[in-house]
Amino acid sequence: MTWLYALDLFGVAVFAITGALMAGRKSMDLFGVMVIAIITALGGGTLRDVILNNYPVLWIGNEVYILVAVMAALGTVLWVRLTHPIHETGLLVADALGLAVFTVIGTQVAMQLDVPWSAAVIMGVMTGVAGGVMRDIICNEIPLIFHKEIYATACIAGSLVYILLHPFNWPFNLDVKLAIAVVLIIRLAAIRWHLGLPRFHLLDREPPEQ
Amino acid sequence: MTWLYALDLFGVAVFAITGALMAGRKSMDLFGVMVIAIITALGGGTLRDVILNNYPVLWIGNEVYILVAVMAALGTVLWVRLTHPIHETGLLVADALGLAVFTVIGTQVAMQLDVPWSAAVIMGVMTGVAGGVMRDIICNEIPLIFHKEIYATACIAGSLVYILLHPFNWPFNLDVKLAIAVVLIIRLAAIRWHLGLPRFHLLDREPPEQ
Amino acid sequence: MTWLYALDLFGVAVFAITGALMAGRKSMDLFGVMVIAIITALGGGTLRDVILNNYPVLWIGNEVYILVAVMAALGTVLWVRLTHPIHETGLLVADALGLAVFTVIGTQVAMQLDVPWSAAVIMGVMTGVAGGVMRDIICNEIPLIFHKEIYATACIAGSLVYILLHPFNWPFNLDVKLAIAVVLIIRLAAIRWHLGLPRFHLLDREPPEQ
Repeated sequence: MTWLYALDLFGVAVFAITGALMAGRKSMDLFGVMVIAIITALGGGTLRDVILNNYPVLWIGNEVYILVAVMAALGTVLWVRLTHPIHETGLLVADALGLAVFTVIGTQVAMQLDVPWSAAVIMGVMTGVAGGVMRDIICNEIPLIFHKEIYATACIAGSLVYILLHPFNWPFNLDVKLAIAVVLIIRLAAIRWHLGLPRFHLLDREPPEQ
Repeated sequence: MTWLYALDLFGVAVFAITGALMAGRKSMDLFGVMVIAIITALGGGTLRDVILNNYPVLWIGNEVYILVAVMAALGTVLWVRLTHPIHETGLLVADALGLAVFTVIGTQVAMQLDVPWSAAVIMGVMTGVAGGVMRDIICNEIPLIFHKEIYATACIAGSLVYILLHPFNWPFNLDVKLAIAVVLIIRLAAIRWHLGLPRFHLLDREPPEQ
Repeated sequence: MTWLYALDLFGVAVFAITGALMAGRKSMDLFGVMVIAIITALGGGTLRDVILNNYPVLWIGNEVYILVAVMAALGTVLWVRLTHPIHETGLLVADALGLAVFTVIGTQVAMQLDVPWSAAVIMGVMTGVAGGVMRDIICNEIPLIFHKEIYATACIAGSLVYILLHPFNWPFNLDVKLAIAVVLIIRLAAIRWHLGLPRFHLLDREPPEQ
């Protein structure tokens, strides 16, 4: 599916850009920007492939992934240096599309390896969000995903849609397209209307052991 | 060994509860609570299986693990919402039992794969504590385990006891039971009398290069 | 290559010492010191072997690695307790040598598994720096490597030199020696003259969505 591969590379580029921007916010040097961009873009897929014992991991099997992530990071630095503004809304929409594609591809990879559906959902969500979580941990932030508008919930929904639809024969890869659309629509709606899941507040007392 | 499997699931539930409570202290949303609970409960075993190349990892091979972790997390949120108090001492004792079971199971898995005993100890300790360490890192805390009363030391002792006893033929799985008891007793004694290892204090000066 | 193995163990010891010192700065207990030392010394190689599916990982295949890391950690605690000063410059130079050796060995391991050159460079850099990054994340610091003088850039250069030289037949393992020298020289020059890569500063505004 060439269009899916193209979307996949698009997602890698977008995630690399969010990584580079976060690294810039932490005043990292050029190498730090590159590393954070690569980890954000490819960390989720790497973790998925390692846990699924799916060797080689994506960027060892195909050098294009690293190339795209590095180019996107360099492009971001140049763009900002030339004092262009970041189009936040555009980035959010692009990020939502990348998230949708990563999630569905992650679910696909897991299903091809015949894991139970619960594991396939986790793999889909992990492919979509783990890179961003790694970025936030390395940059010493509590991962955004646990605080912001509905994010991973959109992944869960899209992953489930794909799992439900896939066993049937669909023309034009409609199962893939519908699942991507579900993540995208939920995520864009959440951004537009600031939808969030209920929070779970607990008073700060001495935490229990370990 | 059905009783060991039951204790294993008990450990998963308890670790998931400590994860959910920590997520609540950070005011995460429902999805965050679920993810932190799953990572706390299954992160140690996952890391062990990945490093040992022991595919499928526990929760891919058996869907019950995810189910128990998710139910425990949801149960915790409901329990706290209904303003029930958390029974801290009960949780500490339950956590010690979970720790003991995870440690011995981790050591067992490693020994079945014929790794050297030093690696088997590390795998036992890792199975017991890595989930909690991941929870603390994601929640941006210095892992408790390095600061609190004797915790991982209890795991090391139990793991060694199992390695020493296992080669002999024991009726009633006495080797497993004794090793679990060792972790449990050391840990409970440490909680009761606030036993800790000596600290290693170093003045804060400019850290040496990475 | 016995001298390379000796240098490898030297690197393990040095990295374990930097881990133990960081743990001391955080007032961790003895177990924490040991764990941080082991992770700093062996985390990079472990991550490399896991991603390359190169089982057994180094310290499962050879118990000496763990032994050296533990001895170095204990030695550091004793040394500091006996109020000996830390010779910072000596440690920096030793750390640079460890970094150089780890990087070249990591690149070697990857090339023996026939990965593309981009992945081999990443594996070399990862073997050299990931242990220190894990140390800093667990200790709740933004990894030094992204802020300090040229560090990983030296690894990239050395890794590339090895990849370029290796296909030819060199007497006396000159390819390995030259690659190690390149990392060492760049790193020592960076320390001596405080060379750094340009930083990428971005004003602190609300970060874009995960």
